[in-house]
Amino acid sequence: MNPVIETVAEQLSRGREGGLLPTGRSHIYLPKRKAIIDVLFDIRSVLFPDHYPADDAPVPIDEHLSRVRRRLAREIASALRSVDRPHDAEALADQFLSRLPKIHELLLLDAQACFDGDPAAKDLHEIIFCYPGFCATLIYRIAHELYLLEIPMIPRIMTEYAHGKTGIDIHPGAQIGRHFMIDHGTGVVVGETCVIGDHVRIYQGVTLGALSTRGGQRLAGKRRHPTIGDNVIIYANATILGGETVVGENSVIGGSTFITYSIPAGSTVINQATLEKE
Amino acid sequence: MNPVIETVAEQLSRGREGGLLPTGRSHIYLPKRKAIIDVLFDIRSVLFPDHYPADDAPVPIDEHLSRVRRRLAREIASALRSVDRPHDAEALADQFLSRLPKIHELLLLDAQACFDGDPAAKDLHEIIFCYPGFCATLIYRIAHELYLLEIPMIPRIMTEYAHGKTGIDIHPGAQIGRHFMIDHGTGVVVGETCVIGDHVRIYQGVTLGALSTRGGQRLAGKRRHPTIGDNVIIYANATILGGETVVGENSVIGGSTFITYSIPAGSTVINQATLEKE
Amino acid sequence: MNPVIETVAEQLSRGREGGLLPTGRSHIYLPKRKAIIDVLFDIRSVLFPDHYPADDAPVPIDEHLSRVRRRLAREIASALRSVDRPHDAEALADQFLSRLPKIHELLLLDAQACFDGDPAAKDLHEIIFCYPGFCATLIYRIAHELYLLEIPMIPRIMTEYAHGKTGIDIHPGAQIGRHFMIDHGTGVVVGETCVIGDHVRIYQGVTLGALSTRGGQRLAGKRRHPTIGDNVIIYANATILGGETVVGENSVIGGSTFITYSIPAGSTVINQATLEKE
Amino acid sequence: MNPVIETVAEQLSRGREGGLLPTGRSHIYLPKRKAIIDVLFDIRSVLFPDHYPADDAPVPIDEHLSRVRRRLAREIASALRSVDRPHDAEALADQFLSRLPKIHELLLLDAQACFDGDPAAKDLHEIIFCYPGFCATLIYRIAHELYLLEIPMIPRIMTEYAHGKTGIDIHPGAQIGRHFMIDHGTGVVVGETCVIGDHVRIYQGVTLGALSTRGGQRLAGKRRHPTIGDNVIIYANATILGGETVVGENSVIGGSTFITYSIPAGSTVINQATLEKE
Amino acid sequence: MNPVIETVAEQLSRGREGGLLPTGRSHIYLPKRKAIIDVLFDIRSVLFPDHYPADDAPVPIDEHLSRVRRRLAREIASALRSVDRPHDAEALADQFLSRLPKIHELLLLDAQACFDGDPAAKDLHEIIFCYPGFCATLIYRIAHELYLLEIPMIPRIMTEYAHGKTGIDIHPGAQIGRHFMIDHGTGVVVGETCVIGDHVRIYQGVTLGALSTRGGQRLAGKRRHPTIGDNVIIYANATILGGETVVGENSVIGGSTFITYSIPAGSTVINQATLEKE
Amino acid sequence: MNPVIETVAEQLSRGREGGLLPTGRSHIYLPKRKAIIDVLFDIRSVLFPDHYPADDAPVPIDEHLSRVRRRLAREIASALRSVDRPHDAEALADQFLSRLPKIHELLLLDAQACFDGDPAAKDLHEIIFCYPGFCATLIYRIAHELYLLEIPMIPRIMTEYAHGKTGIDIHPGAQIGRHFMIDHGTGVVVGETCVIGDHVRIYQGVTLGALSTRGGQRLAGKRRHPTIGDNVIIYANATILGGETVVGENSVIGGSTFITYSIPAGSTVINQATLEKE
Repeated sequence: MNPVIETVAEQLSRGREGGLLPTGRSHIYLPKRKAIIDVLFDIRSVLFPDHYPADDAPVPIDEHLSRVRRRLAREIASALRSVDRPHDAEALADQFLSRLPKIHELLLLDAQACFDGDPAAKDLHEIIFCYPGFCATLIYRIAHELYLLEIPMIPRIMTEYAHGKTGIDIHPGAQIGRHFMIDHGTGVVVGETCVIGDHVRIYQGVTLGALSTRGGQRLAGKRRHPTIGDNVIIYANATILGGETVVGENSVIGGSTFITYSIPAGSTVINQATLEKE
Repeated sequence: MNPVIETVAEQLSRGREGGLLPTGRSHIYLPKRKAIIDVLFDIRSVLFPDHYPADDAPVPIDEHLSRVRRRLAREIASALRSVDRPHDAEALADQFLSRLPKIHELLLLDAQACFDGDPAAKDLHEIIFCYPGFCATLIYRIAHELYLLEIPMIPRIMTEYAHGKTGIDIHPGAQIGRHFMIDHGTGVVVGETCVIGDHVRIYQGVTLGALSTRGGQRLAGKRRHPTIGDNVIIYANATILGGETVVGENSVIGGSTFITYSIPAGSTVINQATLEKE
Repeated sequence: MNPVIETVAEQLSRGREGGLLPTGRSHIYLPKRKAIIDVLFDIRSVLFPDHYPADDAPVPIDEHLSRVRRRLAREIASALRSVDRPHDAEALADQFLSRLPKIHELLLLDAQACFDGDPAAKDLHEIIFCYPGFCATLIYRIAHELYLLEIPMIPRIMTEYAHGKTGIDIHPGAQIGRHFMIDHGTGVVVGETCVIGDHVRIYQGVTLGALSTRGGQRLAGKRRHPTIGDNVIIYANATILGGETVVGENSVIGGSTFITYSIPAGSTVINQATLEKE
Repeated sequence: MNPVIETVAEQLSRGREGGLLPTGRSHIYLPKRKAIIDVLFDIRSVLFPDHYPADDAPVPIDEHLSRVRRRLAREIASALRSVDRPHDAEALADQFLSRLPKIHELLLLDAQACFDGDPAAKDLHEIIFCYPGFCATLIYRIAHELYLLEIPMIPRIMTEYAHGKTGIDIHPGAQIGRHFMIDHGTGVVVGETCVIGDHVRIYQGVTLGALSTRGGQRLAGKRRHPTIGDNVIIYANATILGGETVVGENSVIGGSTFITYSIPAGSTVINQATLEKE
Repeated sequence: MNPVIETVAEQLSRGREGGLLPTGRSHIYLPKRKAIIDVLFDIRSVLFPDHYPADDAPVPIDEHLSRVRRRLAREIASALRSVDRPHDAEALADQFLSRLPKIHELLLLDAQACFDGDPAAKDLHEIIFCYPGFCATLIYRIAHELYLLEIPMIPRIMTEYAHGKTGIDIHPGAQIGRHFMIDHGTGVVVGETCVIGDHVRIYQGVTLGALSTRGGQRLAGKRRHPTIGDNVIIYANATILGGETVVGENSVIGGSTFITYSIPAGSTVINQATLEKE
Repeated sequence: MNPVIETVAEQLSRGREGGLLPTGRSHIYLPKRKAIIDVLFDIRSVLFPDHYPADDAPVPIDEHLSRVRRRLAREIASALRSVDRPHDAEALADQFLSRLPKIHELLLLDAQACFDGDPAAKDLHEIIFCYPGFCATLIYRIAHELYLLEIPMIPRIMTEYAHGKTGIDIHPGAQIGRHFMIDHGTGVVVGETCVIGDHVRIYQGVTLGALSTRGGQRLAGKRRHPTIGDNVIIYANATILGGETVVGENSVIGGSTFITYSIPAGSTVINQATLEKE
C-alpha cells in the first residue's frame, strides 16, 4: 500500500469521525433526486400533455392522475419517514392533486402575461414549450403547493432543478400572484418569505432577497424578504432586500438598483449614472 | 376509482377544453429539440472538426456537408410545414451552407478577440474548446443566418440551448459585428433588434434589452433594443434598454449602470457609489 | 455532387488551411472532459461518501483513494504530455492526495458558514447535498490544489463544469479563505488573481473581476483582480474590479455597486437610487 | 468521388430497381420490433407482477391492464393498417385481454409440470423467474392468442424474440395442451400446424416440423406438422415430421430419432446404435 | 372503466390469490440478475485482464480482487438471506477467491485443448477472446466453485447467462476434468450430476442428461446423469442419458446416437444410417 | 490488506507471468467487436436500406458507400497492423465494395429460396426482415468476401455475432452456392472448408463438420469438411463429417443421421428407428 494513501486514509477517516457530520448512510435522508424530478415531469405532463407528453401515446387523464398520485405518494412517504413524522402520504398526495386545476388555471394566466409582455413571442404554445421564465414559474407553482403541505426536501429539490436549468431560483415558500412574468430570467432570486402581487414583471438578475445577518438560524420562519405590490415592473439586476421592504403597486424599479427600504405606490426608482465625456 | 382523481380529472379536462389553448397534439408544432440540437452540433463540427469531432474518424468535408444539408433540410421542411408556408427546404439549406465560410471567418475573429481580451487564455484552441462566451457566440452566428432565412422556431431552439448551457441569451435576430467578445457571460441578454458594432466586449450580467411596455404584441417587428457602436466596453451587470438608445463608439459603460438614453461617442458612464465609514 | 457543397467545401478547406489555427487533431490537446469530470466526482465521493456515493456499496477508503490516484495520475499524465513537460504524474497525484484532509476540513467550515447564513437551511447535510454555492466551492477547492501543482487545463475543465451547472464561475487560481459562503450564486465571477479573506459572504451576480484592457496577453501572471478582507459581505450584482482594489475587513458592499477603487475597513458602500413619485 | 463507389452505387441502384423487391420505405410495413417486445413484457408483467415487475412500484391491476390495452391496440392498429384490413383495434385488444385469465391458469400448470419434471428445481418461483423453457412457453401462449385473432406479424415477432433468447422456436400457430414442459430447449422447433396434447415433455433439439417440399407456397394453410398425443415424452434431438404423422398417447420417443410416420399409442421408439469394440 | 378490464382484473386477482403462488414481492427472492452478471464479468476480468478489461486503465490486482470480494460478498449475503441461512458472506467470498488460481490454471489447459482441437484457431488469445465453447466453460468453472459452497441461485444465474449467450447449458453442479473442449456448442446440455474425465471433447447438440421420470422431485440429490471417462470424443447431437450410464475411456461416440446404457472403454458407437438409392 | 487477497494476488500474478500467455495488452490484438459489428450493420443497410435503415432519413447511396468504405478501411487497417502485414486498407475496402452488387444479387436469390420453401412466409420482405436463417446467410456472404481478401479476425467476429444471435455458425471460409436456405437454424454448423452447391436446404441442428482428430493444428489449411451437391435437402440434426465426404446431388439426408462417408447422387439416407410396443 502506497504510504501517501495510508496517511491520507487515516487522516480522512479521523476527520470524518470526529467531525461535524454524523456518518454512515443510514443517518442521512438523501432524497432520490431522479425519482423526484420524474414525478415533477409527470405532473407537468398531466397539466400540459400536448407540450410535455409523458408517454408514446396519450394516456387517459384519470389513469395519468392515478400514476402521478402513486409516484408522488411514494416520494412523500419516504421524505416524511426521514423526519420521523407520522403521516398519511396518500392523503397528502390527494390534497396536492386537488390543487392541480387551480395550478393549471394560474399557469395559463402566466403564459398569457408572458405573451402580452414579449413582442417576439408567436403564440402561447411557444411560451409553454420553450420559455425558461415560464418553465421556472411552472415548477415553482407545483413546488409551492407541496411546500404548503409541509413536505420536506421535495419542493426544494424541484426548484433547485429549475435553478440549474434556467438560472432562476424561486424558493417554493414564496407567494406569487396571478399574471406573473419573468423574462430571460438568468440570475433571478425570489426568497422564501416574498409576497408578490398580480401582474408583476421581473427581468433577469433581479433579486428579491434577505439582508445578510449574523442572526442566522434564529431568523428561521421570520419574514426576511420583500413585498411587491400589483402591477410592478422590476428591471434587470435590481436588488430588493428585507422583510420590511414594500414596493407599492404600479411602481417601476429601474435596473441595477439596490433597495432596502419601502417604495410608495406609483413610484419610479432609478439608479442615476454619471457620464464623463472623454 | 379514487374520488379525488375523478373530480380532478373532470376539472382539468374542462379547463383544457374551455381554455385558452386549442388541444390535441395535431394542432401544435412542437419542434424536435433533440434533432435540431444534433444538426447544430453537426454544423459546429463542420466548422471546427478538430475541436468538435462528429464521428469516430474524420469525415471528408464534402460528405460532411452533404449530411448537414440533408439533416438541416429535413428540420427546415417540418418547421415550414408547421406554418403552412410553401417552401423549398433544400434550397434554403443550400443558402445556409453558402454562408458557412463567412461564419467560420467571423468566428476565428471572435476567438482572436477573446484571446486578446483574456490574459488567462493560453491559445485559440482553448477558447474554441471551452469558453462559454465563445460557445454562445458560435451558436448565435449559426442561428442568425437561419433567422435571416425566416425559418421559424429552429433558430430560437438553438439559442435557447446556448442559454441553458451558458446562461447567455442572445436572440438570433440581433446583429453583431466582428471581433465580438463575451467574458464569463452568465446572465447576458442581447435582444432581437440590437445592433452591435465591431470590437465590442461585454461582461456577465449585461442586458441589451427592451423597455417594458403594456404595448405588448403591437410592437412586434419594431426596433426595441439599443445600438452599440464600435470599440465599446460594457462591464458586468450594466442594463441598457430601448430602441432609441445609442451607445457611441469608443465608450465605456461601467458595471451595474441602468441606461435608457443615448450616450455620446467616447464617453465613460459610471454608477457612483456612496461610501459610509462605520 | 451538389455544386453548393463543392464550393463551400473548397472555401472552408481553404479557410482552415490558411487560417489562424494549425489543423489536424494531432496538433491539439483536447482533454477528455468526461474522464476529468469522472475523476472530479470520484474525489468528491472520497470526501463525502455518504452524500455522493461513487459505487453501489461503500468502498474501503484506501481502495477508494487508490482508484482516485490511478485515474487522476492518468489524466495528469496526458495533460502534461500535451505541453511537453517532463513529469512524474504519480508523484503529482500523491501531492494532491496529501491535500485532501485539508480540503475536507475547509469544506466542513464552508458548509457551516452556509448553514449559519441561511435560516432556510435545515442541517449541514442539506447544504452538502444540494446547495449550488457549496457545490461550486467544493469543486473550486479541489481544482485550486491542482492549479497550485501547475497542471494545465484540468483545473479549468473542472471549474467550467461547475460554472455550467451552477452559474458560478470561480477561477481555480483564486485564493479563498475559510468559512466562505456563496448564496444562490448564479452569475458570480471570481477572477484568477483574487485574494479573499475568512468569513466572506457573496451573493448572486457578484463579480470580483479585472478591468478590461487592450493590454491583453501582456498582463498574464500580473495581479488583475481585487483583494477582499475578512468578514466582508457583498450583496447581489456588485461589481468589484482591478488588481489594486482592496475591500477592507468588516465592510459591507451594497448590491449593484460598481467599485474600481479601494474601500477602507468597516465601510458600507451603497448605490443610492433616485425615487420619483408619479 | 471514388470511381469504385460510383460504379457500385450505379450497380446497386439498378439491382434495387429492377429487382424482386419493390423499393421505398413507404411500400413496406416494418413492425416496430422494440415497441412490440415492450408490449410483450408488459403483458408478462400483468401476469406475473412479482417476477417481472414493470414499474418501480406496484401498479394497480386495472391501471396496468388499461396500459396494456392501450399499447397493444396501437400496435394492432398499425399492423392491420399494413394489410389494409378494416379493423377495430380496441375491440381486438379487448378480446385478447379477456383471454389473459385463461393464459395465466395454463402457465401455472406449465410451471408445475416443469417443477415436477426437474429434480433440480427448488420451487415454482425459480421456474417462472429463470427457466428458458418456461419463458418460451409463456411467450408462445401470449402470441398464440394474437394469432387466433389473425393479427399479422406481431405474434411472429414475439416468438422470434423468444427464439433469439432461448433457442426455442415455437410457431404462434401451434396448438399446445396443458402441463407442457420443455427442458433446456435450445434447438427446439414446433411448427405452425402442430397439435400437442396434455402432459407432454420435450427436450432440447426436438423438431416437430414439416417435410421439405418443392410444393412451397401452395401448401400454405394445409396441415404440415405432426400431432402429439397426451403423456408423450420426446428426448433430445428427435425429429418428427409431417402433417399425417401422429404420435399416440403415452409413447416415448428416444433421442436422435427421425420419424416421418405415425407411432401407435404406448410405443417406445429407439434409435439403436452399433457398438464396435476397439 | 372499460368493463373488459374490470372483469379481467377481477379474474386475474382471484387467480393470483387462490393460486399456487404466494404473492407479494416480499415473499420472493428475485436475485438481481444484472448485479450477479456484473460480478461474473469482474471475476472473468481478474482472470484474463488483457482479454476482458474491466476498467479503462489496468487496476492493480490486489485492488481488483478486493473489489470482486466486496461485490461477491454482497450478492452472496442477499442470496443466503433469502433462504434464511445464517452465514458469513465474507468468509465465503474468501473461500471462493482462494480457488481463483486453480480456476485460472484449469482454464489455460481448456484453452490449450481448444487450440489443439481446432485447426482454424490462430492462437490461444483468439480462443480466450471469442470462442463460445471456451466462454461457457469459463463461466461454468466459476459457477461450479460457488455451487460447491452451496450458495443458492447465483451459480445458476451465471450458467443461464452463458446458456442464453452461447446455447451451451452446463449445470454448475457438473464435475468436469482437465483439458475440456466444447466446439461450436449450440445445444449442448451437461446435467447436474455429470462426471466428466480429462481430455474430453464434445460437439454441438450433445446432451449428457437425465432419463425423464415421473419420479420428479423425489430424485433431487440422486445421480441422474452419466459418467464420461478420459479421452472420450462425443460427436454432434449425441444424447447420453442416465445416472448409471458410464462411457469408458478412449471411446468415440458417433453423432446423433441415443445412449442410455454403459459403453466399455475403447469403443466406437455409431448410428448406422440406411441408404436408399433412388 | 486481507491475507486471502494477498495470497491470491501473488498466485495469480505468478500464474500469469509463468503461463502460456504473453501478458500486457500491447501484445494482443483485440479487435473492437462493437466497431466491427457497426460496420457490418452499415453494410447490411447499404444492401437493404428499406429493411435495415441506418439513419433517421434515407442517405444517398454514394454517400452511404463512402461511409462504409471509410469505416471498413479503418477496421481492416487495424486488423492488418496486428499481424504486421503491409497493406493498403483502402484498396482492400474498394475490392470488398466492388463485390457488393454480387452479394446483393445472391441474397435476393436466397430470400426467394426461403420463400419458396416455407409456406408460412407471407412475402420476401418478411424473410429479409425477420428470418434468422436469412440473417445468418446475409452475414456469412459479407464475411466470406472479407475472408477471401485474407483479412484476419474481422470475418470471424462477424459470423460469431450471427452465431450468438441465431445459433447458426457458418464459418466465413465455407463456399456456398445460390438459392441457399436454412430453416429455423438453431444449432447449424458449417465448417471452414465446406463446399455447398446450389438449391441446398438445411434445417436446424445440421452439422457439416470435421472429424475430430489428435492431428490438430497440423491440419490447418487442409480440406476437413464435406462437399454437398446441388438440390440436396438435409433434415434436422443430421451430422455430416469429413473432408472426403461428398453428398451427391439430388440426395435427401434424413434427420439425426451420422454420415462420415460419401453418398451417391439421388440417394435417400434414413436413420431407422426401432419401435417397441408396450
